[in-house]
Amino acid sequence: MLYCADLKLREVAERLACRLDGDGDVDVNRVAGIDVAQAGDLTFFTNSRYASALRSTQATAVILADEAEAAPCPMLRSATPYLAFARALGLFADEIKPAPGVDPATSIAHDVSLGEAVSIGPFVSIGSGASVGPRTIVHPGVHIGPGAVIGADCVLHSHVAVRERVVIGDRVIVQNAAVIGSDGYGFAQRPDGTHEKIPQLGDVVLEADVEIGAHVAIDRPAVGETRIRAGAKIDNLVQIGHGVQVGRNVLLAAQVGIAGSTTIGDSVVLAGQVGVNGHVTIGEGTRATGQTGITRSVPPGSFISGLPAIDNRAWRKAATSFQMLPTLRKKVAVLERRLAELEAAAHSSSD
Amino acid sequence: MLYCADLKLREVAERLACRLDGDGDVDVNRVAGIDVAQAGDLTFFTNSRYASALRSTQATAVILADEAEAAPCPMLRSATPYLAFARALGLFADEIKPAPGVDPATSIAHDVSLGEAVSIGPFVSIGSGASVGPRTIVHPGVHIGPGAVIGADCVLHSHVAVRERVVIGDRVIVQNAAVIGSDGYGFAQRPDGTHEKIPQLGDVVLEADVEIGAHVAIDRPAVGETRIRAGAKIDNLVQIGHGVQVGRNVLLAAQVGIAGSTTIGDSVVLAGQVGVNGHVTIGEGTRATGQTGITRSVPPGSFISGLPAIDNRAWRKAATSFQMLPTLRKKVAVLERRLAELEAAAHSSSD
Amino acid sequence: MLYCADLKLREVAERLACRLDGDGDVDVNRVAGIDVAQAGDLTFFTNSRYASALRSTQATAVILADEAEAAPCPMLRSATPYLAFARALGLFADEIKPAPGVDPATSIAHDVSLGEAVSIGPFVSIGSGASVGPRTIVHPGVHIGPGAVIGADCVLHSHVAVRERVVIGDRVIVQNAAVIGSDGYGFAQRPDGTHEKIPQLGDVVLEADVEIGAHVAIDRPAVGETRIRAGAKIDNLVQIGHGVQVGRNVLLAAQVGIAGSTTIGDSVVLAGQVGVNGHVTIGEGTRATGQTGITRSVPPGSFISGLPAIDNRAWRKAATSFQMLPTLRKKVAVLERRLAELEAAAHSSSD
Repeated sequence: MLYCADLKLREVAERLACRLDGDGDVDVNRVAGIDVAQAGDLTFFTNSRYASALRSTQATAVILADEAEAAPCPMLRSATPYLAFARALGLFADEIKPAPGVDPATSIAHDVSLGEAVSIGPFVSIGSGASVGPRTIVHPGVHIGPGAVIGADCVLHSHVAVRERVVIGDRVIVQNAAVIGSDGYGFAQRPDGTHEKIPQLGDVVLEADVEIGAHVAIDRPAVGETRIRAGAKIDNLVQIGHGVQVGRNVLLAAQVGIAGSTTIGDSVVLAGQVGVNGHVTIGEGTRATGQTGITRSVPPGSFISGLPAIDNRAWRKAATSFQMLPTLRKKVAVLERRLAELEAAAHSSSD
Repeated sequence: MLYCADLKLREVAERLACRLDGDGDVDVNRVAGIDVAQAGDLTFFTNSRYASALRSTQATAVILADEAEAAPCPMLRSATPYLAFARALGLFADEIKPAPGVDPATSIAHDVSLGEAVSIGPFVSIGSGASVGPRTIVHPGVHIGPGAVIGADCVLHSHVAVRERVVIGDRVIVQNAAVIGSDGYGFAQRPDGTHEKIPQLGDVVLEADVEIGAHVAIDRPAVGETRIRAGAKIDNLVQIGHGVQVGRNVLLAAQVGIAGSTTIGDSVVLAGQVGVNGHVTIGEGTRATGQTGITRSVPPGSFISGLPAIDNRAWRKAATSFQMLPTLRKKVAVLERRLAELEAAAHSSSD
Repeated sequence: MLYCADLKLREVAERLACRLDGDGDVDVNRVAGIDVAQAGDLTFFTNSRYASALRSTQATAVILADEAEAAPCPMLRSATPYLAFARALGLFADEIKPAPGVDPATSIAHDVSLGEAVSIGPFVSIGSGASVGPRTIVHPGVHIGPGAVIGADCVLHSHVAVRERVVIGDRVIVQNAAVIGSDGYGFAQRPDGTHEKIPQLGDVVLEADVEIGAHVAIDRPAVGETRIRAGAKIDNLVQIGHGVQVGRNVLLAAQVGIAGSTTIGDSVVLAGQVGVNGHVTIGEGTRATGQTGITRSVPPGSFISGLPAIDNRAWRKAATSFQMLPTLRKKVAVLERRLAELEAAAHSSSD
């Protein structure tokens, strides 16, 4: 299903804007990982864990940083080797995309607006008043609710649900089965202990260049809006509560959960399974390690860990001490006994 | 897509059974958050975090508690202001609902029973012997398995799967892509280390007035039943293991996981990402903070935190001390040295 | 919907290869849990938590281990009682399976290969070049992407997405709405702080006898493959990152998350909500308790807990000491004061 090209390394260097160091006449036809690459493969070295693999790689050529140690094969040097790797993949392999056109087995309301060259797969339903921008690809089984607006050059993978009135910008990619605009979890307790549903009538906006993972849920609020700003990338199985604001270029790894009305500043990075309380603000550029529980607002540039979240350096030191706790308790008990003996001796000698 | 009404504040007060404090002749036409409300908006004050926003709100009127401080605008006083807010939303905005009727692009077995005024969207499949109660709305792409029973006045959002023989009560709302009745995770290990699937043939029951979030998975057991009792509200991405019993009016926040055969008592509240072990009982009215790991049964009325879960107050104190651990270790080391010196001195002086 | 048989206990003993201890002429017609079983029921005792229920069970017969204490009813003794229970379910109840055949309301590319006796439900879409093995059941609303290969005797429940070029072995069961082959979370940061998508063009392979839970997401890598080896069983809402290798007979409980490029050894067991860092190796046979955060590689046979993960025994001891931390701090403060007094006294007496 993948078309593979066959290119001279010299040409690859030019197209990726890399500095060629070695024989530019070798042929490369695939990108492969450094530990499995073989003759004919272009590989990449961007993670120091693989330094020994670099020294013994069988690849025909390698992309690496300007300052990285030399490899035993021709090299493509770059100031941004990971970016060069990303672009190399586009040179060598190209996925087949669904052709433009609207499958006959769809259910599209009469007043839906479809941009030029859209591709709409089978069993897609689109509600009244919705619009889909030019060149957007809607895979099989997607549901787009009434009044939703989808931008240009988007990709909605199979089983995605875009609920009523959701607005999605240009070049947004939504992986399979993500739900955009489900009702927020809002209930008011009645005096008898039961709960009344608060109608969730607010808006959800995904700005341009956002990517949403599989099984992500993004809730709509009762009033106001939930907004994912431009360039944010959200991994699989993430929960975005109602009224949350996610900043530009934010990275949320898999299974992160953000409770309602919280604001995530620009360029924040939350690792897997992090949880964030409702009604707090995470300052710009903050990073949190996996499973961190963020219970209150944190200032910009924080690097945090643990439950409740504290400074990462302090947390790492305390975590190292954690398993010493039983020993520490014993030491303190011994100190108490020895000190009592000494006090008794001092007391008797002073008598 | 939302119809908005225009009402005198006096009329709103009457319909919400609030006490009017100020000019009842002003017009309001929308409900909005306290920090963004403008002229013409009715807002609400139910969270003390927003006290300063209350003092400077631009809203035309505000719903608030009897005892709350006065706002700079006409007020609707209530003993249950959050409930009044929930109901106000219903006065001002009304979502368009799909019209009754069965879309022609459906696959419905010949012996399915459909109540009056049901609405069945495109690409819905309903298996043999199933029934759907009156006025229930089944959104596009839902699958209802053979023999499933859906009550009256339910809403199943797009891509929901209701597996075979599941029973759902009246007024149940299921958000998009939730799965009700998937096979429980039950395997018996064979002597060679491989695992044999235990057929999961039990029942799943959702009682009346339950709400289920997007991407929730509720497993069926091998024998017996999994049951969600009346009025329980389950947020997105929650896992309910096979044979679990969830009590009345329970609130489970997003990404909570309940392992098999556990019983959650009535009115329990578990915050986001809480995990509960299998085969345990959580006493009525228990609350757990986010990411708590509940490893054993807890008595009614508990308030717990941490992994393993302990009393919240004890946990908060211990968590505060956690980052002092490295300092504490140093202090103990210093004490040991100083005590040894003192002991040596005492020993030599007693010689 | 379940056909139930009526069998003599003697016959059940034979068919399950159990040793009959008691009256083999009694009739049994259902398998039920030990706490709810009634006359006519066969029950099972495999968990010591239910020892008192065993003594008072109303069941007609019980399956139990050779060495278990005697029950007040006829017994089926087995060296592998849980396996006997699993098989007993198959004797007494049999779910109706969809009949072979291809529903007319499907969208199947002209060049798709369908094995004999496949069952393809309504609203299933299958892309160009894909193949489905004999006797495989594809429930309603499944999407199978171009070039995907599905083995024989598989079951894909409703709303499953099998993305392009994914390969699935024989006898694989995929619960509802699981996504196999979504794009890995791979982005290269540009100098301006925005992120460029790395094309995810690698492969995903599920080997034979794998079971995948509802809402599981299994990502494809940029290069290389993500592989789930034979016999692994993955529970609901699990995240498998791009390039992950999951070993044979591995058990991953609900809501586990495995970050990219990690290797999980054979027969590893991870309890619910465990998180595993990227680029690490979990040695064969390792077990981790619920919510463990595995930050680095662990040797085979480890039993670990906590964040960061440490030996389970050490963790349990430290966790027990955790809530003593405030008391410990006070004790150290008291020791410091008393020691200072003693030092002062010693100093003045030595003057």
